[in-house]
Amino acid sequence: MTRQTDLAYAAELDAHDPLAHFRERFVISDPDLIYMDGNSLGRLPRATVTLAQNLIQQQWGERLIRNWNEGWFTAPERVGAKIADLIGAEPDEVIVADSTSVNLFKLVVAALRIQQGRSRILTDNLNFPSDHYILQGAIDLLDKQHRLDILPSPDGIHGPVTELQHRLDSQTALLTLSHTVFKSGYVYDMPAITSAAHVAGALVLWDLSHSVGSVPVDLHAAQVDLAIGCTYKYLNGGPGAPAFLYIRRDLQDVLSNPLAGWMGQRDLFNFELEYRPAMGLRHFLTGTPPIVSLSLIEPGIDLLLEAGLDNLRAKSLRQSEYLINLWEALLQQLGFTLNTPREADRRGSHVSLGHTESLRIDQALIHEMNVLPDFRPPDTIRLGIAPLYTSYRDIYTAVTRLQKIVIERLYEKYPKEAPLVT
Amino acid sequence: MTRQTDLAYAAELDAHDPLAHFRERFVISDPDLIYMDGNSLGRLPRATVTLAQNLIQQQWGERLIRNWNEGWFTAPERVGAKIADLIGAEPDEVIVADSTSVNLFKLVVAALRIQQGRSRILTDNLNFPSDHYILQGAIDLLDKQHRLDILPSPDGIHGPVTELQHRLDSQTALLTLSHTVFKSGYVYDMPAITSAAHVAGALVLWDLSHSVGSVPVDLHAAQVDLAIGCTYKYLNGGPGAPAFLYIRRDLQDVLSNPLAGWMGQRDLFNFELEYRPAMGLRHFLTGTPPIVSLSLIEPGIDLLLEAGLDNLRAKSLRQSEYLINLWEALLQQLGFTLNTPREADRRGSHVSLGHTESLRIDQALIHEMNVLPDFRPPDTIRLGIAPLYTSYRDIYTAVTRLQKIVIERLYEKYPKEAPLVT
Repeated sequence: MTRQTDLAYAAELDAHDPLAHFRERFVISDPDLIYMDGNSLGRLPRATVTLAQNLIQQQWGERLIRNWNEGWFTAPERVGAKIADLIGAEPDEVIVADSTSVNLFKLVVAALRIQQGRSRILTDNLNFPSDHYILQGAIDLLDKQHRLDILPSPDGIHGPVTELQHRLDSQTALLTLSHTVFKSGYVYDMPAITSAAHVAGALVLWDLSHSVGSVPVDLHAAQVDLAIGCTYKYLNGGPGAPAFLYIRRDLQDVLSNPLAGWMGQRDLFNFELEYRPAMGLRHFLTGTPPIVSLSLIEPGIDLLLEAGLDNLRAKSLRQSEYLINLWEALLQQLGFTLNTPREADRRGSHVSLGHTESLRIDQALIHEMNVLPDFRPPDTIRLGIAPLYTSYRDIYTAVTRLQKIVIERLYEKYPKEAPLVT
Repeated sequence: MTRQTDLAYAAELDAHDPLAHFRERFVISDPDLIYMDGNSLGRLPRATVTLAQNLIQQQWGERLIRNWNEGWFTAPERVGAKIADLIGAEPDEVIVADSTSVNLFKLVVAALRIQQGRSRILTDNLNFPSDHYILQGAIDLLDKQHRLDILPSPDGIHGPVTELQHRLDSQTALLTLSHTVFKSGYVYDMPAITSAAHVAGALVLWDLSHSVGSVPVDLHAAQVDLAIGCTYKYLNGGPGAPAFLYIRRDLQDVLSNPLAGWMGQRDLFNFELEYRPAMGLRHFLTGTPPIVSLSLIEPGIDLLLEAGLDNLRAKSLRQSEYLINLWEALLQQLGFTLNTPREADRRGSHVSLGHTESLRIDQALIHEMNVLPDFRPPDTIRLGIAPLYTSYRDIYTAVTRLQKIVIERLYEKYPKEAPLVT
């Protein structure tokens, strides 16, 4: 009888995984590499290789400027509509543009402008640092009358839910949080938090970067006002691929883009000096989008849509449960802590493990063991599960290699103050 | 004896062109296509095709997240340093980031913050519309105490130089212009204008989008404060490739980025919630850059550096002079006007022709004649000269096909109100 801690058990789980065949749709050149960082940079879909050739050689090389009218101009909406399908939005409520941070800036400034008389922006200390910087930058720019209120997590893992709900009041202009937080992988209850904010008259903006493509989101059911997210993690869009933004339809013409640019002009080829915003979401575009990076997002999304997000979520939860069980059986006794919620419905698609030697363990994992996780200070090793291509064997191998590093003290040759990268 | 209006003369000029061989470094799949739009989207360098394969398959596909430490993180500075070489800047004074419009926003806000007590932004009505939108957006955002002062061109072709110099005063915070203007191709005298602005205590920001890679610029000699520009025109960086920004070194730590984001944080992998700007230019980065689009800029710049910008400028001027001579001999009598300065030192690298039927002529040129120019309302057909690959034969053919369209009235089948695209 196979035990859960045997490789054979992982092989059995892979054999019965209905999504296992999607792994073949990705370029996997080093079969020994255990890639547990799809939550940071998703793998390369095979279809993207083909598209890249067409994009460079035919679209740019042959069609040249003509291709602007043959798919490039509409790419922000076309790719946006597919992302909308993953997050419970209408096709015309999502558009691809700029970076997550720039999109956050646009939406925060736009939101604060229609929330006059309210001076507080509410967030938590689990939100991604760049979101904090952008929020503070927007406040400094606007009038310095707003205040950023950062609620601390009770344990560094879970969101300060009760505190947030208490702090929402008639002074709160905007509540903005990462739906799935980047360190612990905690997932907020989007409908409950959004609803509480709305009762207080606040607008809500969710950063979906660590959710989109792995955690089902239904923006419409939760009546979310605004959202942003990135495309290079679970969407497999490629390094630094442009981000997306969502604006609920009834807010689209109420909000104005502080970075008004020619791509959002109503008739951009009239070259009028006076800005007249395009209808719908398009006026939240600014400059000319980076077409190659933008176009390459699409094949990764198509794979997710083909697999079905509910199926992917079911597999992701089975896999993170499996990883947590292995942690309990093999790693806990070696000093590893679980820095991720135990509750399935509060857990995203990565599992964070802490250890007093985690920075050196992370180095050994990468350089000795051919396992790629990522590290988040002070002590978190993140193991990302991308259910389109992560196998149970990957998880088993990552855990047993972690075990070996600690048992054999393989981390000791690495400096305590390793440089922090990726 | 060959006459200037003979094809043989064009062939002779090509035969004696020392840069002619650079044309082979580009993908040219349709030898009959006359591409006169390199001022809008540069052609595809062959080296870019090779780089794209490596970038997608090796860097993303195989190295995955590791490649951030193997060239991606430093790409904004690495490519920026090469652009610096084209515009008379030091390597650490140029960085690649975002779009031209977003970069303009960052620099304008940063400039206005250190110019307190001065309320005027000065520009002209030849500046690119998106620059106007961004300027107005920045004013609306800041405090509405600033005013955008738009000086009209005397003739729609030349810059309002005298007017500008008169209007510079102790209230002028910032003067910002396109160095080469997008419609007429007029080139401002950068040293004279910059110097006049400095005498008045104003900062100067040049949009180099239509200059970089075709018109020599020496930012240091002119003591320019700030500049921005795009990479998809004469740099051949690819559709919508990210833009660049220049900040003179002594201003780099004086200015603060209103779009502070994690790519500009001093130690980005510490994930601190408090923003501490990186030294030098890097704090003018915001979010994660679109690596594929960004990386593909480099081969096009390498070609320009290899050819030498002075050589390219010399060829560009010979070619625009040739085009203007052909206009004079063949097109003027057909109702075409020259909407570009006659003076060589005031002319960029495209020639604009007007005609009462120019919109329909433009359509016929594209659809009947396999010539790709672009159209700028109300009546301008722009013929771009990219001296790395534009041949004299291209110019000759474009002009004679224009001639044929008017003589044979081939434009008449096109609607008077054609949709305005690219």
